[in-house]
Amino acid sequence: MTKKTRLLIPGPTPVPPAVAEVMARPLIGHRTQEFADLYARLQGKLKKVFGTENDVHILTSSGTGGMEAAVANTVNPGDKVLALVTGKFGERFTELARVYGAEVDALEFGWGNAVALDQVEERLKKGKYKAVLATHNETATTVINDIKGIGALTRSADALLLVDAVSSLGGAELLADDWGVDVLVTASQKALMVPPGLAMVSVSPRAGEAVNQARSPRYYFSLAAAKKSIAKYNTPYTPAVSLFAGLDVALDMILAEGLEQVYRRHNTFAAATRQAMNALGLKLVAPETSASPLVTGVWAPEGMNADDLRRKIVQDYGILIAGGQDQFKGRVFRIAHMGYVDAVDILGTIAALEISLAHVGQPAKFGSGVAAAQAVFAGRK
Amino acid sequence: MTKKTRLLIPGPTPVPPAVAEVMARPLIGHRTQEFADLYARLQGKLKKVFGTENDVHILTSSGTGGMEAAVANTVNPGDKVLALVTGKFGERFTELARVYGAEVDALEFGWGNAVALDQVEERLKKGKYKAVLATHNETATTVINDIKGIGALTRSADALLLVDAVSSLGGAELLADDWGVDVLVTASQKALMVPPGLAMVSVSPRAGEAVNQARSPRYYFSLAAAKKSIAKYNTPYTPAVSLFAGLDVALDMILAEGLEQVYRRHNTFAAATRQAMNALGLKLVAPETSASPLVTGVWAPEGMNADDLRRKIVQDYGILIAGGQDQFKGRVFRIAHMGYVDAVDILGTIAALEISLAHVGQPAKFGSGVAAAQAVFAGRK
Repeated sequence: MTKKTRLLIPGPTPVPPAVAEVMARPLIGHRTQEFADLYARLQGKLKKVFGTENDVHILTSSGTGGMEAAVANTVNPGDKVLALVTGKFGERFTELARVYGAEVDALEFGWGNAVALDQVEERLKKGKYKAVLATHNETATTVINDIKGIGALTRSADALLLVDAVSSLGGAELLADDWGVDVLVTASQKALMVPPGLAMVSVSPRAGEAVNQARSPRYYFSLAAAKKSIAKYNTPYTPAVSLFAGLDVALDMILAEGLEQVYRRHNTFAAATRQAMNALGLKLVAPETSASPLVTGVWAPEGMNADDLRRKIVQDYGILIAGGQDQFKGRVFRIAHMGYVDAVDILGTIAALEISLAHVGQPAKFGSGVAAAQAVFAGRK
Repeated sequence: MTKKTRLLIPGPTPVPPAVAEVMARPLIGHRTQEFADLYARLQGKLKKVFGTENDVHILTSSGTGGMEAAVANTVNPGDKVLALVTGKFGERFTELARVYGAEVDALEFGWGNAVALDQVEERLKKGKYKAVLATHNETATTVINDIKGIGALTRSADALLLVDAVSSLGGAELLADDWGVDVLVTASQKALMVPPGLAMVSVSPRAGEAVNQARSPRYYFSLAAAKKSIAKYNTPYTPAVSLFAGLDVALDMILAEGLEQVYRRHNTFAAATRQAMNALGLKLVAPETSASPLVTGVWAPEGMNADDLRRKIVQDYGILIAGGQDQFKGRVFRIAHMGYVDAVDILGTIAALEISLAHVGQPAKFGSGVAAAQAVFAGRK
């Protein structure tokens, strides 16, 4: 039976044909006017998506490389850092700051919970921090955090705010300048619809001062080197030019649809997925108030291993959904609805999931999840 | 007039259609058996090209990121390091070791000269070094260095040998294990015919011990993390999967042609280019004995700016050749003949160059460079 591969994992996400096509064209040299024009165009578009007037550096690396650039260039050994941890990626940010010798206070909210602003406020009153690390969209727990609220607090406390928006930017609103984000990091392979290989990092003037005073060893991820090069719309080291070309087309698609509409679309897909899971009697990981618009986490029913379900649905229907990570392993499955995904993908996935659930021994509830999602799409919910 | 873009620069090089095609296919997830199978296949193929039995880690970064991984994971602050410098990329390696706090002795051979083994031997007798840094193919000066000879010396001296083969591997012979190279670094966008975005790093058991004792902060480029992941044919952070898929096809092409034949082809193209330049009365940068098989550097004739010639040939014929870097700027042009380039590209480029030389005021010698190259291809030289 013909079986298409469908990526409903939180990255890499499906690549639109127009993006794939432009990346298959002959390469351009990276020390040419053509490349500088491309990088200049990307700056204009990225500034809109980032909500910033500042430079957005494009690094050839995964999002983790961008997170390392954020930390290595602003945090010195011995600096006090407050890490807001809501899951695996908050833990990674914490670990990075420790690798670079920071004295890190990790404020843990527990897997499945969002950052509680009152606890952050209290901590910032008690201690003086050079920087606060936050995760916008915690893919591991499918929770989205209130960066605007956190930004208001870090501003009052005169701390730098470094934000991992690797899995959210371009799919959920984040206004770097208005919200007071000093370093904002994202990556190509999530809502931005490009294959993995690029990280993007914006740097506020305040963070720029920290970059000038940074003392940790760094070379490839040096934001000082990136700043020097971007003045001529160039990069210090050879960039992944084919991915740059893909990003150019993907950003055109996002801006043509309009950021507001793109955010609305992600919200609708998330609502449809959540309603479907509710209708199937499955428990959601994230509370409704902080549920991610980009990925939905679902608890496996008692006695069912989530990974058995995943194996079944990919085997029968070619649909890749994500499992649980670390403490959620086997207990949770995650359906991503980010980037180049449409309503038919979501409806079809829910329908296939219903069959696969029955195949792994759950009561058959054919059509009930689909009907709940349909109601959302039809505008009834 | 139809004008195709031809990349005769030392990276990025032209991408074969079959490589471009596979990269345009729908992405696969990176936490799947399909990806593990791909990475396992790549290991087998890369080991042949590297001439090693050891793991070859694929990092999502440019070659410079791979060089940083080599240094950050083996050299501690205060370690004595000997850097063999024959041009810009030797300088970069030196700079990297200094960023990581090494006490670096830079042995400079002058731009245009190769590493002199007797000088290396003398230095290694005088002082005890933890590591020696060497460049295989110095693209800035179009000189190739004798890594086999250097390896024999570093072995006797019990120093680690870290080699930048970013612009040579897959185009010129380098046998990591036989020659005693402990960390060998290359990148995707040169002789390996894939767009930029991947660095590859092999690690000898001896270098592995140094990795275990490394103390510098590093995360994204941690070779300990890479080693842990590669046991399951996985990567610690999201890999550039589309480039991995491209590399799979490109390595098939190289191995199907046969490494010996690929090296011979590069040598022939280099000889044809050098003979053509001689016939045109142009002076070569590299002496015949250490001329790179991958890129040929040519001095601009007295009174001519090399960059004027470059602008003319790209404008009229779509051919991108490289200029001189740093102290060679304006004084040198460089024709790369690496990767997916054929004899007709070389002959056509020489012919176009002859016209462009005349356009920028040089005496017209139409056909004489071409004839010299033809003689090489016809097997007469």
